[in-house]
Amino acid sequence: MQLTALAPFSCATLDVLLAERGIDAVLATSAHNARYLLGGYRFFLYDRSDAIGASRYVPVVGYVAGRAADSFYVGVPLEDWDTDVHPPWVPEVANVAWGSVEAAEAAAERIAQRGLRTGTIGIEPAHLPADAMQALARALPHATFADATQLLDELRRVKSAGELDLIRRGSTAVVDSMLATFAGLPIGATTSEAVELLRQEETRRGLTFNYGLIATGSDHGRAPCGRRIAAGAVLSLDSGADLNGYVADVARMALAGEPSARHVEALAHVDAVQQAARDAVVAGRRGGDVPDAAQAFMATLPDASRMAFQVHGMGLLTHEAPRLMSGGAPPGPATHRDRPLEPGMVLSIETHLADPQLGFVKLEDTIIVAADGHEAVADRGRGWNSLG
Amino acid sequence: MQLTALAPFSCATLDVLLAERGIDAVLATSAHNARYLLGGYRFFLYDRSDAIGASRYVPVVGYVAGRAADSFYVGVPLEDWDTDVHPPWVPEVANVAWGSVEAAEAAAERIAQRGLRTGTIGIEPAHLPADAMQALARALPHATFADATQLLDELRRVKSAGELDLIRRGSTAVVDSMLATFAGLPIGATTSEAVELLRQEETRRGLTFNYGLIATGSDHGRAPCGRRIAAGAVLSLDSGADLNGYVADVARMALAGEPSARHVEALAHVDAVQQAARDAVVAGRRGGDVPDAAQAFMATLPDASRMAFQVHGMGLLTHEAPRLMSGGAPPGPATHRDRPLEPGMVLSIETHLADPQLGFVKLEDTIIVAADGHEAVADRGRGWNSLG
Repeated sequence: MQLTALAPFSCATLDVLLAERGIDAVLATSAHNARYLLGGYRFFLYDRSDAIGASRYVPVVGYVAGRAADSFYVGVPLEDWDTDVHPPWVPEVANVAWGSVEAAEAAAERIAQRGLRTGTIGIEPAHLPADAMQALARALPHATFADATQLLDELRRVKSAGELDLIRRGSTAVVDSMLATFAGLPIGATTSEAVELLRQEETRRGLTFNYGLIATGSDHGRAPCGRRIAAGAVLSLDSGADLNGYVADVARMALAGEPSARHVEALAHVDAVQQAARDAVVAGRRGGDVPDAAQAFMATLPDASRMAFQVHGMGLLTHEAPRLMSGGAPPGPATHRDRPLEPGMVLSIETHLADPQLGFVKLEDTIIVAADGHEAVADRGRGWNSLG
Repeated sequence: MQLTALAPFSCATLDVLLAERGIDAVLATSAHNARYLLGGYRFFLYDRSDAIGASRYVPVVGYVAGRAADSFYVGVPLEDWDTDVHPPWVPEVANVAWGSVEAAEAAAERIAQRGLRTGTIGIEPAHLPADAMQALARALPHATFADATQLLDELRRVKSAGELDLIRRGSTAVVDSMLATFAGLPIGATTSEAVELLRQEETRRGLTFNYGLIATGSDHGRAPCGRRIAAGAVLSLDSGADLNGYVADVARMALAGEPSARHVEALAHVDAVQQAARDAVVAGRRGGDVPDAAQAFMATLPDASRMAFQVHGMGLLTHEAPRLMSGGAPPGPATHRDRPLEPGMVLSIETHLADPQLGFVKLEDTIIVAADGHEAVADRGRGWNSLG
């Protein structure tokens, strides 16, 4: 009883999701789901690289349906350093496994101890190494393995106050970092130099830099490279960074000069699509209305054929539940299209106009679903910012 | 012919390693081996997090034994942005696969096109997702799959001039960052604050921070936390960071006050073990002599029972070939113990003394094997540095 209160997620919700799929226990092995089930904990030593010698770091969080007190965690021996000072909520912390096969064996042993040798075990097939899967199947030959990816995504779809706080702080810091980058960037700098400056600004604000997508001039390629930002050219900056694993993903524009009427119009159109999407964000409204409203409005614009809109849920992953549209990049099923939006869902909405002359014009904003509408996080710097 | 010259590694060496194991083609799917076979290239967008929506980013480099011209790369559709401006050397770049299963299918298709449907295909079982392995086996039902982890490790054991340059620059920047951290850290700061300061210093120097292991006072726990650095206490800082994926891993000491005779003696003993290891480093000498010499000398010291020595090869991974000792953390086979050291191998040597009163005293240095001895990289700051 007390343990379900300690758990950083709703055990009741997870139990329902497991019961619906007939899963007896789940083994979370992805960085994001292990972190989620442990309330933010991730062993700092392997956060950047999970290669360990000739194997791989595979943290395993085990959760047995309806039996939170049987939850466990399998880490590496050195991990006592971290769990001693940041103890996870699970009753059993077993820092015993070096590498993927040992981790799977230690998890299988605990599944067997909990009487689930013939049970149905949920796994993450894209985030479980092939040799760990083989070790699981070998150690639990009478168990059935089921894909738990979608149910764990579902579990994460509504954010807690603590998660929303990280998302707000992260998005705000990314926008601040972009504005500082624009202000500090001389005309003639390369796009690689611009992204390195952004990385410095984000790091200075406590974030872990993930990537900077950047386009300048009439070129729509978005990889940082030796391309120089010329006088009069547009600059599109789109960056991901995280705070304790929670992602911020925002895009802003700058110009190396004064905006022309065409510049102003292009960005106004992009913004208008973003506003059309925002207007559809309120708890209780059908999720699919967000992309539908944006795309219907976009279709009325003269540049529609060169524009694109995308919406994705965001949290520990850049693209997660709620999933309101298919298509986009990456493609995926629109599992939440015909379901109501819920307070605490986080949406990233993004619109671009890829103009052959003007260049790549884009805005991306973070929107939190609220009972009476929505909250636009870090809603600043959305016009033409000046360079240098 | 020309292609083998373009390849950033020795195709002849790889061909021998594959022939010895009867492997017809290898599919590298780990971040480190894909990067290695592409000469340093890694798609920037998924460098921090390889989760893509409900799946995972799995870059695949395919190499066919003896047929460099048949090499290929499978990336994600968005990756054209990066490969357009940073074209890899492989003749076929196929940015076609979203997620792990599609990547495996695209790789299997190319293996089949190259006439290897019934061949032996080398894979990385710890760095290939379970669903990708399943897709490979489904698409190539008559192929045999073999573990290529060890042979790829072997391929990377001697570093090129370009790799050594990255390692020298990286180690130097980590040492500089540590000295700046010691100088900037007030007595009373927490170990979390110290590691955050180190992260800032490393980032400022162009590095990607990996981790900071830290211990202070008589506590030997090494996770950053709320523990404060008290006046008179020792501080051990051990950090990993990378430059284009190449790891630097160095440890230095500081003291919040003046060193006592016991402080000086403890660090001198640790240093003497390091020197004993260094003295055994010269091309042509048996690899196992390095840990043997260090451990033999260590056994003569009064604190031997509280001391430990470890040596590991280092490059794209913190622990890679040459593997000169078993035991240690992580444990693994000592595959290079009875083989000669080769010029261009990179060793990380580390010695600690865990003293119940004094605290955790450690040095870790990067040593490059040379024809006539060795080069100690960034060989500074190895005494008691002052805090603040």
